This record gives sequence, structure tokens and C-alpha cells, in this order.
Amino acid sequence: MNGKPLVSIVSAGMSKFGKHDGLLAREIFSEAAKEAFSRCPKLDPKNDIKAMFIGHMGEAYEHQGHMGAAAADWAGLTGIPATRIEAACASSGAALRTGIYAVMSGLADVVLVGGVEKMTHRTTAEVTEYLAMASDYPFEQWHGITFPGLFAMMATAHMHTYGTTQEQMALAAVKNHYHGSLNPKAHMQKEITLENVMSSRCVAWPLKLCDCSLITDGASCIILTKPELASKYTDMPVHIIGSGQASDTIGLYQRKSLTSLNATRLAAKTAYEMANAKPQDIDLAEVHDCFTFAELMAYEDLDFCPVGEGGKLVESGETRLGGRIPVNTSGGLKAKGHPVGATGTAQAYEIYLQLTGQAGKRQVKDAQVGLTHNVGGSGATAAVHIYRSA
Amino acid sequence: MNGKPLVSIVSAGMSKFGKHDGLLAREIFSEAAKEAFSRCPKLDPKNDIKAMFIGHMGEAYEHQGHMGAAAADWAGLTGIPATRIEAACASSGAALRTGIYAVMSGLADVVLVGGVEKMTHRTTAEVTEYLAMASDYPFEQWHGITFPGLFAMMATAHMHTYGTTQEQMALAAVKNHYHGSLNPKAHMQKEITLENVMSSRCVAWPLKLCDCSLITDGASCIILTKPELASKYTDMPVHIIGSGQASDTIGLYQRKSLTSLNATRLAAKTAYEMANAKPQDIDLAEVHDCFTFAELMAYEDLDFCPVGEGGKLVESGETRLGGRIPVNTSGGLKAKGHPVGATGTAQAYEIYLQLTGQAGKRQVKDAQVGLTHNVGGSGATAAVHIYRSA
Repeated sequence: MNGKPLVSIVSAGMSKFGKHDGLLAREIFSEAAKEAFSRCPKLDPKNDIKAMFIGHMGEAYEHQGHMGAAAADWAGLTGIPATRIEAACASSGAALRTGIYAVMSGLADVVLVGGVEKMTHRTTAEVTEYLAMASDYPFEQWHGITFPGLFAMMATAHMHTYGTTQEQMALAAVKNHYHGSLNPKAHMQKEITLENVMSSRCVAWPLKLCDCSLITDGASCIILTKPELASKYTDMPVHIIGSGQASDTIGLYQRKSLTSLNATRLAAKTAYEMANAKPQDIDLAEVHDCFTFAELMAYEDLDFCPVGEGGKLVESGETRLGGRIPVNTSGGLKAKGHPVGATGTAQAYEIYLQLTGQAGKRQVKDAQVGLTHNVGGSGATAAVHIYRSA
Repeated sequence: MNGKPLVSIVSAGMSKFGKHDGLLAREIFSEAAKEAFSRCPKLDPKNDIKAMFIGHMGEAYEHQGHMGAAAADWAGLTGIPATRIEAACASSGAALRTGIYAVMSGLADVVLVGGVEKMTHRTTAEVTEYLAMASDYPFEQWHGITFPGLFAMMATAHMHTYGTTQEQMALAAVKNHYHGSLNPKAHMQKEITLENVMSSRCVAWPLKLCDCSLITDGASCIILTKPELASKYTDMPVHIIGSGQASDTIGLYQRKSLTSLNATRLAAKTAYEMANAKPQDIDLAEVHDCFTFAELMAYEDLDFCPVGEGGKLVESGETRLGGRIPVNTSGGLKAKGHPVGATGTAQAYEIYLQLTGQAGKRQVKDAQVGLTHNVGGSGATAAVHIYRSA
């Protein structure tokens, strides 16, 4: 993990995740921006920030496109280049990657990267339909399949191939709800039991209601600069030392494997190599648990455990707070919530808090190296980033 | 215009603009990509291209988000980071800016930047509604105003302040249709008369049907690399020597002026300074004529003429082929067509052809320096780029 810092995070902000009745996405985003600005009093946002990239998945929710300009406007940054980045649920993971390009290009020394989604004012049917737009229209959506169905196919393939059980998947939910109970910004802050998950109603077999992440409103952001400028803004920077983004076929039907996401594997390979890090170097990770099964698959694709043993890893307790490699200490998409466009930089926010010792009750002791893993759709996009405390 | 090259264009491609019945956006994009690949036989797309950014404005048209992955898939580039960029009608102008960041960052030596939109399978009412999503939902859309109305307000303010006439606006359409008649890829390749424009039905006074750009299907792309690598791929690179992107308030109601786009002015200032160029150095330009009036306003905001004299400039004939500074030799959004996400890189495609002497009947003699100007919405985003032949 002696990779050269690509960029440094000098501040971060996140709105409360949950229901924000009556607020527009841009207003929720301004809450996240305000926190990031207030954490970094040496920064003059209006003059110092030279570009902004905002992950936002769906213009349908608010009938609002052009979210770059709208969010910049409400964050008080009108004038700078402000661009919406969309890669489904990996929108702000891709925005982070884009912000790294911008800082490293030399064209923008300080960049705001974030994401936002306002979802809860829509019915579950509407949200399910809008989310489905991230899958293949002619070959998937048109036939009626939605995301729980796509991930259920992957889960059943994994159960068939490796003997993974529903109980193992459920344990990811139990763990992440425990973590969420320690996060005052999480959407759900209540612990749940294995029995709660197993008895919740079936959404798409084997995935039950409690295997699914939450429909949530929220926003998050981080502020990036060149490593050599970080000390101008903070005494506690966090360096990003690895960045990988990759794509896969949009349709599941074209994939070689249903039990692994090749985009995650490619993005992780790039990020590990850039960081000169091994999976064993990672102290904690935020991975994309849009469904409990997705967390188990991520363990394998990120090489936290051998192929086929994701279920055993969660069972072992090693990914729980206090374990060898705590995963989703924020509560994850499962308990913190999944305002889709905001998820990637919310993961980065958690790693920033952890590596600067600001994670409160869920602080991982001596955390120095963190990883985030953000997936778009059923895996046609993945972004993996590796972070190191300064 | 002795600015240092930021990046070099080594190839470019564009689908026919028009109606592509029965094709998906990703399929139309693959046509543009195929042309760019075939123009550059020394490039091995699958191995050389390290990232892709695609401007795509509306997921509503095809109920398809995640266009980065979908378009990469159909272009044969699955695996690389593939990201959708959305900044309304400036989506691919912003994608171009993002591609420049990526190349200059050192993380991606060769990058494909493009855009696509499939619009003609929708009714005019649907398209009008989807386009309106680029304006402010609570303060504009909700009250029923659409883009012709927003630009009509700007046009009437200009008429009131500077005495600009409907005939002057109409002349931009006449000129651009003449240019379009020389472009075999233009949606409309027929000349029109001043009388045709003036007698066309009113859409939003003073804008008539022939003052409005076209609803079009199409895609475009360019391939960027580092200037020092350009000779590996082509003997005829075009250098990008200036890049500016800026934002403005999403709502017109917050603006200081209705007769000028501040985002254009900011982006142009950045681009001119970076290129070390003056407006007089520009041999030809592609500007954002979503409405005829917008072209006149662009002349002023790009300093091609003094404030208030956009109408006189088009009247003078100086922006017509053969004039001092030909504008929209491709036919512009007005005659070539406006598949919104594709427009920014289609402008770059035209400048690439012109600066490499490949523009056929519409070739501008001795063209060495070109400019593109791409606007999102009613001006909450603008991207300006300056190009120089090698």
C-alpha cells in the first residue's frame, strides 16, 4: 500500500440519509456541501473549487435533468464547470473517478465530487421502474425483469455452484443493520435478527424484503485536491492511492459468469495495482450491498476471500466491527440507505471519517487503509477506490 | 493562438443525422465509432482506448439509463471505464471536456469521447417534455414553460434592447440551411428562403417553426490522445488548444441578463486565454443554434462582434461560407440537426474535418483555427473549445 497518492481528500459531507419530505435533490445536496465546507474552514468554496462532478442516476424522480448546474447553483458554486455523471448506482463512484482525472489533469486544483438522489416521494413501483432503466431495455426491462430479479438470478447461480445459503446472505443484513445502529446518519438505525430477515416477505426468490437495500433520499460529497496542496486546507487529509473503473456488458445474458462481476474484478485489479496494495492490506471496506447477496459476491471479487466462500466469510464474523476486515461499518446500502446517485461518495465519506478517527461509535481501531466498491446496475459498471490515512 | 496543445484529436466519426427508424441509440453510436475507428487504422480500439465518455441527455427517450456501459458494449469496448455525461444539450461538450481531463491526468492515454440521442420515435409533445427537463422544474417546467418559450423571452429582450429583428434571426436559418445543403450527413439538405422562415407557423413569438432546430437521431465521436502520442496514430492530428466550461443558474429568473449567456462568456474567456487566442484568430466556428436567436447571441458572447450587433453580423454575410468567419458550416443544429447528446462532439467532428481539409463542398479555405460552442438548456452550461490544425 505504498502507492503514490493520486489526490487527497481534504473534506467530506453527507446529509442525513432517510426521508426528506418536501425537499428537492439540490436542497439535500446543499446540506452535504455545507457540511464539507464547514469541516474545512481554510477553504473558500466559491474561489477555490474549480469544478464539480455530481453523480445522479435518475432524472425521472423529479423530472429534473441538468443536475450539475442545478446542484452547483444551490451549493453556491454557480460559474464553475458542473457536470452530472451517470453510471446507474455507480454514478458517484464514477464521479469520484472523474474528479480524480480533473485534479490530476492540472486544469482544476480543487474539485467537489458528490452525488444525490431524491426517491422517497415516489411509489415503490415507480422507483422500481426508474431503477430498471439501468438494465438493458430491449433484452431485460422489456420482458419485465427488475433488479431484485437480476440479482436473484445471480444469487441462485451462486447457491447452485457453491452451496451458498439464504441464511448466509441474511447475515450480511444482520451485520449491516448492527453497523447502521451505530450511525446517526443512517436511514435505519435499528438492529434486526436472522429470523427477521428469513421471515420477511419474498421479493424475488431467494431475496426477501430484508435482503434488499433501502429506497432513500440523501446526498454526499468529498473535496479533492492535489496531494501537494492538501496541507493548505487541512491537517488531516486522506489520500486516494488507487482508482479503478470498469465496464461489462449491459445485459446479464451476455456474461460469461453469473456468480462474479467482471467489472468489479477489473476495477479492483487496477486499483490494487495502482495502490501497490494487496487485499490483506485493507483495514476496512464499504462494498456495494444493494442486495445481501451482492455483498457476498463483492467479498470474492475483491479477493477478501476465495471464490465461493463469501457466505463463509460473513458467517465467520470477520467482516463485522471488531473483525479482521469490517465491511460496511456505515450500515451499507442495506441500513444506511441507498439514494443511488449518492452512494459512491457516501462510501468515500465513511472511509474519510474512519481514516481520520471521526467515526464515533463505529470507529475501526487503527484504520489506515480503506476501500470503496460501487456497482452500477447489475454490474455493467464498477468503481473501486483505495484510501490511505496521511 | 500559440497555446500549447492540451490534447490531440486523431480521429472522428459521425452517423448520418436524421431519422433512424428501428435502431437503438447504442446502435447509432456504434456507426459513429465505426467511422472513427476506420479513419484511424493504426489504432487498435479494443487495446488502445482506455476510457470512454458519452454525452447522452435523456434516459426517457428509450427508457434506458446507463448509456456509458450500453454504448461501450455495442462499440466493442466492454471493459474500459465508460461513463455517461449529462449537461443537457451540452452533454457531449462536457464529455469532451471530461475526456481532456482524463488524457491530461495521465490515467488514460487514448480516450473516446462522443454523444448520442435517439429522438424521432417519440411524439413532438414527448420530446418537448423531455427537453424541458433540462430547465428548472419548480420554477420553470412546473409553470408550463418549454425551451422555445425560454429562448423567446431572451429573443424579445434582445429585440427590445438592441433593435434586433425577426428577419435577422431568420437569416441564420437561411444561412445554415444553405450550409446543410452541402453536408451529406445533415438531417435537412435543402435550402430555404427568408420568406419560408418568416411565413412558418409561430412556435413561441418571435420564434417560428423555421427558427427552431430539428428533432433528430444521431451520434458523433472523436478520439483524443496526448499531443506527443498523436503521430503514432495519424499524420493529420488536430490539436485542442483551449477548453472552457462554465455554469450559470438553472433558472432564467435568477440571471442578471436575458440578452447574453454568462456561461458562454466565462467558458469563452477561459478557452481564449488558454489558447492564447483572440476572436479575430478564429477561422470558423460551430455555435449552438438551438434557435436562430441563440446563434446571434453566441456571436456576441464569443466576441465575434460587439454586444447588440449579432443581427448585423449575420446580415453582413460574414458568417456564411466564403465570409470572414463562417459559422455552422455543417448546417448547425438548425439544418444538420440536433440529437441533443450528440451535438457537442458533432461540432468537434465538423471542425476536425475542416482543419484536416476533409469538408468537401463546404470546405473553408485555409482553415487553421476553429471554435466550438455548445450550450446546455437555457445556458446553465456552456462548453467552448478551440482547435488548431497541426
